[in-house]
Amino acid sequence: MTGHSWSVPETEVVQSIRDHLDGRAGDPDGPPAVLATVVGVEGNAYRRPGAKMLLGADGEGVGAITAGCLEEDLASVAARIRETGTPEVVTYDLMDDEDDVWGLGVGCNGIIDVLLEPLTETYRPAVDALEEGRDVAVATVLDGGDGPLARGDRAYYRPDEGTLRTPDGEVATGWPEELTGPAGDLAGRGRGDTLAFDVDGTTVDLFVDGVAAPTDLVVFGTGHDVGPVTELAARNDFRVTVVGFRGAVDLADRFPDADRTLTTSPARLGEDLRLDDRTHAVVMTHNFVDDRIVVETLLDAGVAYVGLMGPRERFEEMLEAFADEGRTFDESELAPLYTPVGLDLGGGSPYQIAHSIVAEVLAVSNDRDPRHLKEREGPIHERVNVGDGDDGGSDGGGSGADADAPTQ
Amino acid sequence: MTGHSWSVPETEVVQSIRDHLDGRAGDPDGPPAVLATVVGVEGNAYRRPGAKMLLGADGEGVGAITAGCLEEDLASVAARIRETGTPEVVTYDLMDDEDDVWGLGVGCNGIIDVLLEPLTETYRPAVDALEEGRDVAVATVLDGGDGPLARGDRAYYRPDEGTLRTPDGEVATGWPEELTGPAGDLAGRGRGDTLAFDVDGTTVDLFVDGVAAPTDLVVFGTGHDVGPVTELAARNDFRVTVVGFRGAVDLADRFPDADRTLTTSPARLGEDLRLDDRTHAVVMTHNFVDDRIVVETLLDAGVAYVGLMGPRERFEEMLEAFADEGRTFDESELAPLYTPVGLDLGGGSPYQIAHSIVAEVLAVSNDRDPRHLKEREGPIHERVNVGDGDDGGSDGGGSGADADAPTQ
Repeated sequence: MTGHSWSVPETEVVQSIRDHLDGRAGDPDGPPAVLATVVGVEGNAYRRPGAKMLLGADGEGVGAITAGCLEEDLASVAARIRETGTPEVVTYDLMDDEDDVWGLGVGCNGIIDVLLEPLTETYRPAVDALEEGRDVAVATVLDGGDGPLARGDRAYYRPDEGTLRTPDGEVATGWPEELTGPAGDLAGRGRGDTLAFDVDGTTVDLFVDGVAAPTDLVVFGTGHDVGPVTELAARNDFRVTVVGFRGAVDLADRFPDADRTLTTSPARLGEDLRLDDRTHAVVMTHNFVDDRIVVETLLDAGVAYVGLMGPRERFEEMLEAFADEGRTFDESELAPLYTPVGLDLGGGSPYQIAHSIVAEVLAVSNDRDPRHLKEREGPIHERVNVGDGDDGGSDGGGSGADADAPTQ
Repeated sequence: MTGHSWSVPETEVVQSIRDHLDGRAGDPDGPPAVLATVVGVEGNAYRRPGAKMLLGADGEGVGAITAGCLEEDLASVAARIRETGTPEVVTYDLMDDEDDVWGLGVGCNGIIDVLLEPLTETYRPAVDALEEGRDVAVATVLDGGDGPLARGDRAYYRPDEGTLRTPDGEVATGWPEELTGPAGDLAGRGRGDTLAFDVDGTTVDLFVDGVAAPTDLVVFGTGHDVGPVTELAARNDFRVTVVGFRGAVDLADRFPDADRTLTTSPARLGEDLRLDDRTHAVVMTHNFVDDRIVVETLLDAGVAYVGLMGPRERFEEMLEAFADEGRTFDESELAPLYTPVGLDLGGGSPYQIAHSIVAEVLAVSNDRDPRHLKEREGPIHERVNVGDGDDGGSDGGGSGADADAPTQ
């Protein structure tokens, strides 16, 4: 691998997949890029099942599946797959020999299963779903046993639709019906797991890759302080919209990390933006009246998170202004509101403030109590317990994937 | 102002000051750049006292003192100061009229006092101290009353030296002796405050700008996952050193955000690095034996923070390996160790993990409990209580500076 595009946000890996499918990257007439996906992890191997890397025929790699432990070796496997056109599952066992086993000067620790396959149009429905902001589960056959399903065969499940479909959009037949339950669950949680099903007496191993749509973060404000928030949020895979008022111009140029910019008026927010219980928002217009209208609109829309910049006293004044108009909020209505915005990290520079804001949005969107991981009770390495929303169990027959904690 | 270099780390503002002093920026034969420093804040004006902006004669600005509220107006004041060569203190009262008072479409809220002065060699000792990694307090006369001290006159105090000196390095005479106490305190905390002193019967107002040396963060490891940690730490004003082992090469190219890179061996760490109670370190070599030696060296050196990547079980194995060699650690020795490293923000992408790590280092280095600011007890806007290390008091006669919390 000659490229150094490891440390990219996940959304950029998807963008690269799209570029290859559309012929904007790689050589459209040359061999295909190879998609490597972690399908099983045991031990200390850093990335979760579902982590992806795209290996172009030109030697460029985007994304990573470990912290440099295997990437060089994967490039040689990818070269073979480009020739044969046949998907493979490769298992690396780094448990016993962790000192520089791959000659890379980087020890790694764990067993990792990787699916490598030529990137084809069968992956496009996943890219399209993410583009549309919808969760999706990609089910890929790892081992079809003696049955008709072959390694690399694929079906899709979108929870908002509820039908298992082939990559062509047809209703999928010959796939296990009971797949839809765990697929819906994994899609919503953005987690992957290898599951075994019985299909007409044959055991079929599937990797079910739940790909959750990026979380929407809407930033209200156009001051200089919006830039670092937008930049750090984009790096953390939020889909960022910057909203300005009163004819604010050049927003797309000023905030290049935003996926979208919008100039509107406080009164028209409800029409111009899709605001729902998945929306996260940071309100930093520095204008008391604008902030007040935005906060009211967001709380009324039932968004998941509102971070309001400013001291506590300012929000108390805002509540008084609401009360003067006869508007009151009960405790549950105010639950999504965080003001002063951000985690208490100290530091007063623009980047430090932005870092604390984005850290808070990450924690809330992942439903985490942002303490030190050191202080977290219980094991941080739970196994995926498919079909069970909580973090508790370890009996789900998962492949050793982390339920929610980063794999370290 | 035509430049858009607002959202830079603080360290880049200092770098820009140095470049101007050294003639590497601006026109050495033209008018000087103007340094604007916030010397007093009341209300919601975003940046703390001590926040700086450098306004070049070419219209370029680096840094910011508000979120875009005043920067345009400051440019016109700066033009006047370039002509007269005389420092000024300008007060902006944005309390009463917060709707677009400056025609910028950004309302701001508060009273803010700004010292503007031509950038001259009298500022160089501050730049030098930071380059050397030493805390320093810069005392600048805002109002000399009827005495011999004039606005813009300057003296320096370095706590490690204990002598008040002129910009030329001479022992300062004619300055209030009792300045050294609060100057040492503010230097260590990186906070600024306006203080009044009696000098021979005349009241002299000084802005005492405590400029704490950047916090050292040493990252052990050279895997791809080191890149995002280094990048985000540099943005947050840490002075980052990346340490690799076994002839790791090209580190400076691979980690361009690091201030320094070093290739050494685990056994020689103590010689090659200055490790003390100000050092913060993240250990992510992914090699069990290397990690173990590094952790032992760091804990023995009494560093402030060690973040060790990897699951809890891995550290338990490490403790067993230490015990096998007869080495044990008591609770207080392990207090600086955080493993798994990072705050519990959820998210498993490389940037999300790096974000959680840097958030933890920020919180620990600022002695903060990283909860939501919303949940923090008591007012977040304390006044500086000079000479008192805790956060409690509001009787210190300060100018309304925030003690520790970000100004929002």
